[in-house]
Amino acid sequence: MKLEELKTPAFLIDLPRLKANVQMMKDRARNQSVSLRPHVKTHKTAEIARMQTAEEFPGITVSTLAEARFYQESGFEDITYAFPITVNKLDEAAELTTKVKIFNILLDQPQTFSAVEAYGREHGITFNVFLKVDCGYHRAGVDPSKRESVQLARNLADSDFIQFKGILTHAGHSYHCHNPIEVIEIAEQERDVMVQFARSLREDGVDCQTLSIGSTPTAVHAPGWQGIDEIRPGNYVFFDKFQADIGSCQTKDVAARVLTTVVAHYPDHNQILIDAGALALSKDLGADHLDNEIAYGGVSGHPNLKLFSISQEHGLITSNDPLDFQKFPVGSLLQVFPNHSCLTAALFPEYHVVENNRVIDRWVPMRGW
Amino acid sequence: MKLEELKTPAFLIDLPRLKANVQMMKDRARNQSVSLRPHVKTHKTAEIARMQTAEEFPGITVSTLAEARFYQESGFEDITYAFPITVNKLDEAAELTTKVKIFNILLDQPQTFSAVEAYGREHGITFNVFLKVDCGYHRAGVDPSKRESVQLARNLADSDFIQFKGILTHAGHSYHCHNPIEVIEIAEQERDVMVQFARSLREDGVDCQTLSIGSTPTAVHAPGWQGIDEIRPGNYVFFDKFQADIGSCQTKDVAARVLTTVVAHYPDHNQILIDAGALALSKDLGADHLDNEIAYGGVSGHPNLKLFSISQEHGLITSNDPLDFQKFPVGSLLQVFPNHSCLTAALFPEYHVVENNRVIDRWVPMRGW
Repeated sequence: MKLEELKTPAFLIDLPRLKANVQMMKDRARNQSVSLRPHVKTHKTAEIARMQTAEEFPGITVSTLAEARFYQESGFEDITYAFPITVNKLDEAAELTTKVKIFNILLDQPQTFSAVEAYGREHGITFNVFLKVDCGYHRAGVDPSKRESVQLARNLADSDFIQFKGILTHAGHSYHCHNPIEVIEIAEQERDVMVQFARSLREDGVDCQTLSIGSTPTAVHAPGWQGIDEIRPGNYVFFDKFQADIGSCQTKDVAARVLTTVVAHYPDHNQILIDAGALALSKDLGADHLDNEIAYGGVSGHPNLKLFSISQEHGLITSNDPLDFQKFPVGSLLQVFPNHSCLTAALFPEYHVVENNRVIDRWVPMRGW
Repeated sequence: MKLEELKTPAFLIDLPRLKANVQMMKDRARNQSVSLRPHVKTHKTAEIARMQTAEEFPGITVSTLAEARFYQESGFEDITYAFPITVNKLDEAAELTTKVKIFNILLDQPQTFSAVEAYGREHGITFNVFLKVDCGYHRAGVDPSKRESVQLARNLADSDFIQFKGILTHAGHSYHCHNPIEVIEIAEQERDVMVQFARSLREDGVDCQTLSIGSTPTAVHAPGWQGIDEIRPGNYVFFDKFQADIGSCQTKDVAARVLTTVVAHYPDHNQILIDAGALALSKDLGADHLDNEIAYGGVSGHPNLKLFSISQEHGLITSNDPLDFQKFPVGSLLQVFPNHSCLTAALFPEYHVVENNRVIDRWVPMRGW
């Protein structure tokens, strides 16, 4: 099928670029002797998760219990649900614990530990649990410098209804960086905080089986992972404008595109209307901490075009210079690479897989919670 | 079913508030003798569209051709596809023209007119076409002050393969207002531009059957619609934080909520983690032209709480004062009213209908393009 035969807007995956990105991260993990447990929330498909794990470590990371169920049904046997568990999700987590060969959950609250242990005792089930650690992002996790964090790890290790799997962090503050030099600093902090905390635990007699870290920027740039067991990047399969802007990749590496139609020309306002709006792109502002102008994505092959405004189904493009409208005929196609591919992909009920400008496959992601 | 039995995050619709909002707009339309052709893109369900049209004008407005197909299959017989048509969508539009009793499309480009006419001639089909007019929003539409806009209307009216239905506009710049006084000015502009343009057309011998306008802010506040035939507001069924912030409604009128669980307490950072992130709320910044602090939604019943940060599945709440964590136990529920209910609703595969704190129904919206 030709691109021209697709309904727009459509989500395109450039297969050669996807494969190259998948291989790049496999190579980095293998060269540094860490396990790669990719976060599949970026795409939520069985197809890409199989590519990411093929002939390597079989584990994956998910962001919702619905993803965990989907991947269990798709044959995955080692799944970490990397969002802190709550009591109202324990029934589902227990079912997954019995169905999946290895199903890991995580927590960082003493009262959640008590609830998980009580649930395990009542239902005769042993949960695999990571302790979530805050390595500086300050979104979630225990403070590794605090005595009570060591105590919570000890409680996990001592429980009869919990298998303490180790410690896990996410250096999400790498997304606040301006360039790879800053990312490397965060990557070293991410590693050092975890290695140091594991040492504190071991000195206290708490064995720490697995040290798990990972964000795409730090996974791309980390100079080394001594002492670390596994990494959990996700976005790298597609990358996006954000990652290109902070230096995690080059624009040419972005494997995700939104195909859109030029709908109208408005020369008086130096504007072009396209049929990709907020429901096709998401309203993620991208790397708005950089000094860039606001844009809701980049237009492939046309760096001078600015996608400056989106509403539900409308997108408006302008330029600092007078637009050459003849280059963009009404009815012709453009490709937008998204600011944040995870959020953009999540808006589409299907992905079109493209190689040599032909649509060669169609992958259906899972949705919901 | 109790709210506590729902998986979180979940999309809730407060049924009494929804009914009140639906009735409010019906009353406004009836009192002003205009037809209400609601824009159903806000919810994309058959259930709410039936409520909106029951015992009134049967017409609806849609934002995608997939919506048009869904509503045709759901028994709706008068549908306006309110996004400018392009050549690659004419096959679908033609099929809908044959299947739906009244199916209207719109355009604003001379070359699109030529393409529609050529398609009609080739396939022996007559399209119902509105001319899209720019009343000051500058997103789409012809400039009504220009001679070539009158000429385009004349071409539409003269075509043998087009039934010229009239002129249509959307005063989206009402969303840039700060208060109802400013919205009333936009509403008068929206009406006056259209009435004046229709007069120009009639003076030129072009009969203008229907004058169609509408945005939720102007539909709520317009002092009168003399000369106007139909209004097309959509968001009013749910309203949201944006509409409350600019004065289209009060916070108590917002019928849409995202149910979320308190996941963790971080007293050192004065933060609460919830399980509603960007995939449950959208990254719409709401009325960020007002002097409000950035927030990704309001927390129902707790105006002091600030939802200041969201990532894919995480939401972080803080407050200007030290949080009273005991009021928000880990595992307890909160309800967030969204910044932009259209974009938030679009993220959920199902809606839970709530009355007296009980879930009494489940509605499934359509998705995709």
